[in-house]
Amino acid sequence: MTTYTDLNTSARILLGPGPSTVHPRVLRAMAQPLVGHLDPQFLALMNEVQELLRYVFQTGNELTIPVSGTGSAAMEAALCNFIEPGDVVLIGVNGYFGERLCDMAVRYGAEVQRLEKAWGDVFEPEEVEAALRRQPAKLVALVHAETSTGALQPMEGMAEVVHRYGGLLLIDCVTSLGGVPVEIDAWDVDIAYSGTQKCLSCPPGLGPLTVGERAREMLRKRKSRVANWYLDLTMIEKYWGDARTYHHTAPISMNYALREALRLVYEEGLEARFRRHRRHAEMLWAGLEELGLQMHVPLAHRLPTLTTPRVPAGVDEVAVRKRLLNEYNIEIAGGLGVLAGKVWRIGLMGYSSRQENVTLLLAALRELLGR
Amino acid sequence: MTTYTDLNTSARILLGPGPSTVHPRVLRAMAQPLVGHLDPQFLALMNEVQELLRYVFQTGNELTIPVSGTGSAAMEAALCNFIEPGDVVLIGVNGYFGERLCDMAVRYGAEVQRLEKAWGDVFEPEEVEAALRRQPAKLVALVHAETSTGALQPMEGMAEVVHRYGGLLLIDCVTSLGGVPVEIDAWDVDIAYSGTQKCLSCPPGLGPLTVGERAREMLRKRKSRVANWYLDLTMIEKYWGDARTYHHTAPISMNYALREALRLVYEEGLEARFRRHRRHAEMLWAGLEELGLQMHVPLAHRLPTLTTPRVPAGVDEVAVRKRLLNEYNIEIAGGLGVLAGKVWRIGLMGYSSRQENVTLLLAALRELLGR
Repeated sequence: MTTYTDLNTSARILLGPGPSTVHPRVLRAMAQPLVGHLDPQFLALMNEVQELLRYVFQTGNELTIPVSGTGSAAMEAALCNFIEPGDVVLIGVNGYFGERLCDMAVRYGAEVQRLEKAWGDVFEPEEVEAALRRQPAKLVALVHAETSTGALQPMEGMAEVVHRYGGLLLIDCVTSLGGVPVEIDAWDVDIAYSGTQKCLSCPPGLGPLTVGERAREMLRKRKSRVANWYLDLTMIEKYWGDARTYHHTAPISMNYALREALRLVYEEGLEARFRRHRRHAEMLWAGLEELGLQMHVPLAHRLPTLTTPRVPAGVDEVAVRKRLLNEYNIEIAGGLGVLAGKVWRIGLMGYSSRQENVTLLLAALRELLGR
Repeated sequence: MTTYTDLNTSARILLGPGPSTVHPRVLRAMAQPLVGHLDPQFLALMNEVQELLRYVFQTGNELTIPVSGTGSAAMEAALCNFIEPGDVVLIGVNGYFGERLCDMAVRYGAEVQRLEKAWGDVFEPEEVEAALRRQPAKLVALVHAETSTGALQPMEGMAEVVHRYGGLLLIDCVTSLGGVPVEIDAWDVDIAYSGTQKCLSCPPGLGPLTVGERAREMLRKRKSRVANWYLDLTMIEKYWGDARTYHHTAPISMNYALREALRLVYEEGLEARFRRHRRHAEMLWAGLEELGLQMHVPLAHRLPTLTTPRVPAGVDEVAVRKRLLNEYNIEIAGGLGVLAGKVWRIGLMGYSSRQENVTLLLAALRELLGR
């Protein structure tokens, strides 16, 4: 008979592109005994989770919920509910997650138009407009915070262009929500999603999603049924809305965790939280530059939550990461896609964005790089 | 500023159709600090989760994994990976979850053939054979344990018929896995799925899934891509297999919880666990009959994990459930679909299947029904 020991993992400091270190209060809340998924106490908690999600998304959108899967499930929910076969979808591809949006959209029958740029660059509204002039799109999808490159997509003027051409604007906020400003209403964004395990410092397992009225109207006008049962918002909105119609059993403990994580955001306040992320990112950037490393993304559109220093010539990037993990218990990540082997990905997100983590990481890198 | 208090839910005794009460050891394991989703320690844990899932499914299937969503996501994964547009799928509809299988299958372009029976009845292999003789099917889906009716579908002879007509056999084990025998290899079942929150007594959030070689072969021979990105097993099997290719971030804490829940099953042993579920179910049935209640499902195919007594004439079934919850902290559920208002659904699953729970519930019902 095989022996399965007690779970006994090392105390990792999570400074990769996610998950980030989970706040102890979130872990404790998650371990609270369960109530049923239709218990009045859970329904009240769902309402609170929705209110708090609206706070971090800075939106009044009624349809603001945690999708019962990870950020990738929320990404798919953001697409599959609004695409019908033959719809034109314009997708900004300047990193790995832009590619993923394309991969998902075609599965729902979209005619995908790719707006391409180098990994690490961002798009100007004029570029989106030029693409829409050539071919109007029902949906325009951009990655607000590219987890593969560390670039932050400016949103000013974007919605105006998209709406002028009759489309919906969808943004990926996986690595921005709760770490850098995400202003759904002020930016007039129609659909946005995120994950819980990045700047919210909650374990992975839920995907925050918000859908504005313009998009809901399109959902109501669909000719075909949503081609995905689990993520079908026409049914899910009835469970999260007043009807409370059973769809699937919500991941109860994960919702406990998310509520606590969002409560921590609310207590800190969004502005203070953004300043903290910015402050520690600037410390990190200065320190990395002192070690002679060059940042892949120019300062003007660099993400404070995810930094991508280029791996110096002659350095074995995998060996450095392994030693960071095994000798210092620090997790950072390598590059993805075309940036594999070329950059490291260092996250300072949520509870992981702390001065002591920056100091330790820089000191460890100094030792490992011998500088 | 709104105040959000500490999470403070009541200590419910979960005797509904799921979630069941989570074992304290599972709650503790779930609250363990996170490691990354590609950390060697997490990869080792994934292997253990797979081994333990094979143990409870009684299978050697390599492709045995927890889908990163609830049981409904696993249900959709079981369908969407094996259906291509135009495929004939035969579905046994004798309850709510048979209906759900139909709803999902049509979204993937299946030509659904319904094999219907009264809610609470089960199918004979001869009936499946008669249907296949009229119209051969690529996939035959049956609900092993109908969570809406409390009926247990016998599996003897089923696979032989399905395979003789060239199809794959898929079964829903949401309310059976870990509570009543599920013998995937002995029954020669090709695809099966479950949820974590029933007889495994783990919080909802993962959907155990097992896929045999016959079905994997069909997956490899698909002409079209799987019409669902998040549940695409051709990609997910590379993350759970040797390649460890990133697909989505696994719900880490939920996997901690599942490992501990499965470890509890392994320590108890399947046979002892099935006996325990049977013993307490028999106590419950005897006690309910003593109170004058009649079981909806005949003893011959009654589920030990979910009992559906008919609501006695003149009794306000909702009021009884509300009082059970508010005065005794006991959750049971009402009927679903055509059985709404007609039966109660009482689960004795996993950690909830304990003598004291049966005794308390019967005593509480005696008080409430005034018998």
